[in-house]
Amino acid sequence: MLTLDKIYKARHVLRKVIRETDLIYAPKMSSDCEIYLKTENLQVTGSFKVRGASFMMSQLSDEEKARGVIACSAGNHAQGVALAASSQGIKSLICLPDGAPISKVEATKNYGAEVCMVEGVYDDAYNKALELQKEHNYTFIHPFDDENVIAGQGTIGLEILDQLPDADAVVVPVGGGGLISGVAYAIKNLNPDIKIYGVQASGAPSMVNSVHDNKIERLESVSTIADGIAVKEPGQHTFEYCRDYVDEMVTVTDDEISAAILALIERQKLIAEGAGAASVAAVMFGKIPVKGKKVVCLVSGGNIDVTILSRVIKRGLLMSGRTYTLLIELIDKPGQLLGVSKIIADQGGNVISIHHERANEGSDVNGCFLRITMETRDYAHIEAIRKALTDNGFKIV
Amino acid sequence: MLTLDKIYKARHVLRKVIRETDLIYAPKMSSDCEIYLKTENLQVTGSFKVRGASFMMSQLSDEEKARGVIACSAGNHAQGVALAASSQGIKSLICLPDGAPISKVEATKNYGAEVCMVEGVYDDAYNKALELQKEHNYTFIHPFDDENVIAGQGTIGLEILDQLPDADAVVVPVGGGGLISGVAYAIKNLNPDIKIYGVQASGAPSMVNSVHDNKIERLESVSTIADGIAVKEPGQHTFEYCRDYVDEMVTVTDDEISAAILALIERQKLIAEGAGAASVAAVMFGKIPVKGKKVVCLVSGGNIDVTILSRVIKRGLLMSGRTYTLLIELIDKPGQLLGVSKIIADQGGNVISIHHERANEGSDVNGCFLRITMETRDYAHIEAIRKALTDNGFKIV
Repeated sequence: MLTLDKIYKARHVLRKVIRETDLIYAPKMSSDCEIYLKTENLQVTGSFKVRGASFMMSQLSDEEKARGVIACSAGNHAQGVALAASSQGIKSLICLPDGAPISKVEATKNYGAEVCMVEGVYDDAYNKALELQKEHNYTFIHPFDDENVIAGQGTIGLEILDQLPDADAVVVPVGGGGLISGVAYAIKNLNPDIKIYGVQASGAPSMVNSVHDNKIERLESVSTIADGIAVKEPGQHTFEYCRDYVDEMVTVTDDEISAAILALIERQKLIAEGAGAASVAAVMFGKIPVKGKKVVCLVSGGNIDVTILSRVIKRGLLMSGRTYTLLIELIDKPGQLLGVSKIIADQGGNVISIHHERANEGSDVNGCFLRITMETRDYAHIEAIRKALTDNGFKIV
Repeated sequence: MLTLDKIYKARHVLRKVIRETDLIYAPKMSSDCEIYLKTENLQVTGSFKVRGASFMMSQLSDEEKARGVIACSAGNHAQGVALAASSQGIKSLICLPDGAPISKVEATKNYGAEVCMVEGVYDDAYNKALELQKEHNYTFIHPFDDENVIAGQGTIGLEILDQLPDADAVVVPVGGGGLISGVAYAIKNLNPDIKIYGVQASGAPSMVNSVHDNKIERLESVSTIADGIAVKEPGQHTFEYCRDYVDEMVTVTDDEISAAILALIERQKLIAEGAGAASVAAVMFGKIPVKGKKVVCLVSGGNIDVTILSRVIKRGLLMSGRTYTLLIELIDKPGQLLGVSKIIADQGGNVISIHHERANEGSDVNGCFLRITMETRDYAHIEAIRKALTDNGFKIV
């Protein structure tokens, strides 16, 4: 059973492994309320997961420790378990689906785990892990539905109370629910006046649905850029803690999450993964009633693949009018490209790619198209460039 | 004259305005030495500049404060002065060249400064600032060559000594030299055993040259992505402190800086600007003799334009084999595109753009080219895709 005692004990045990992450005041993130960021993206292994895994393992018997632990994950849990185990001298085996990104497989190995690649998807790797666990009598480290794992995550609640005793609300990303269960339990037991809000991705609202219907529900499929909280079914324990201790659960879209990731980069110089930015997205997009309040957004992790990050930035730039692609229909005669180039240069547009296409079927046989991508300042700048081009007789398609 | 007293006083004065930024152990940044990051990119205004500006202003007389201050900058100094002034109730006027990025102009205004846009480049804005200063009797806040500004930056040295008393070396980015002067003065006076290294961009080595030749030298021009340290000429004071207190000065290239920015993103979840990442680049690329040592890299700021960040990431992905563009010469007959697509898909390449061009002059009249950009895992993955294509008879140009 979860108790405050257990969470205080976890805090003591964890001191050797984890960092007490900074709580950063972030006035530029909102003009409506005072946002503070609990930066678990700066935690060792890049996410909070190492807390729960470390405490859970510390509670094993010497015999269990000697046999070793097993887990199944393609993400933050894998790295958390790997570091937690090796820092306590425990052997760990992590089952991953064979499609897992190489970078995560390497990171898991580098933290000292043995890795078992399983053909198929997550569920296949999970079944393989259960099989190996039985065969070798390993201890299975559940990613969320375990009282000791939950107690470990709850240490974040204690730190928040120390760092900002007069917080009004704490906003927490929710996947399986281990993080919010621990944080909510710790905070509500010490100061029930503080509101606890949970945030899920709108493409994976398993806990939202379950709490709403007051029974555990399983989603057929999940789809979100926040892979860290893309969980099909809540745990038994976590469902009960969410039902009993969380004030409200909301969802955010992938576009809202992307905007929050970009805002954290530009305004706070922090990299958050999709799950990590979900809490910030919920406040930025007014999903939670926190006007005028002191709000802690838990940024749960920062392990985002850099190719995905690159796409998120690209999308954010597009959405804020800072890159723009024009398609211009030209008469096919010399000097046209020069004319367009000059107008864009005069307007201060910075061309980054240009493409010249002839004789597309939709156009005049003498016509051709120019596709120009440029860096722009904002929507007004784009409008000025478009106007200058049309004023000079160019036809924007 | 600079004294330890002054730096301690600055530390006391600054408590109300600045954050004592975290020192983060970063074992994944190097296997050769123990790197710690002093995260001034997480400082308010996104850089250390607010420290020097705040302390300098705190030392003004009431009369001077009432008249207001003026500065010239298109970057971090502008935001630092703006926040420092408004937090002490002082009016500030910042001159910027009219080509300054809108985002920086807006940020400066948002911190409470009045902004004066000057036609031309930095030097024009600087001259305008001097003119206005004389006309209105404002106090000019120099970006680096001022003892009180230097004392303010020196508070970072005190924090480092508190946070890691047994550091072996501290690595500091150098532009005009205000930051390293303060940090080196504080640290060398308290613990002369700690080595202090300065890092400049190879496209702007003004302090490196000056210290080498033992006289202040001016560069004709500077060129680097690290705009925060692109300074043509060191100050008189800062030159002397660098000469007397810094153990060694080195340079890093823009490619090395870009790699450091990407490494900080991927491994530490931190956004650094070019200047901020220069210290990390110097250690990553072996410019400094710190093998086996405890090294503090001062990450001086994080104000990087997101379009530039996007380019740095793109370049980093390219350099590490995680995106790749192929040009394939096809016979112009149906089904060719399908064949190529299938091979790439089978190999696990993720196509992100495709371009089909006919009848380029260099090729057979029936030939055409296919330009495919895809996400790949690493160089070995690229090689596997290339091999599969050539094995199937496709000609890679």
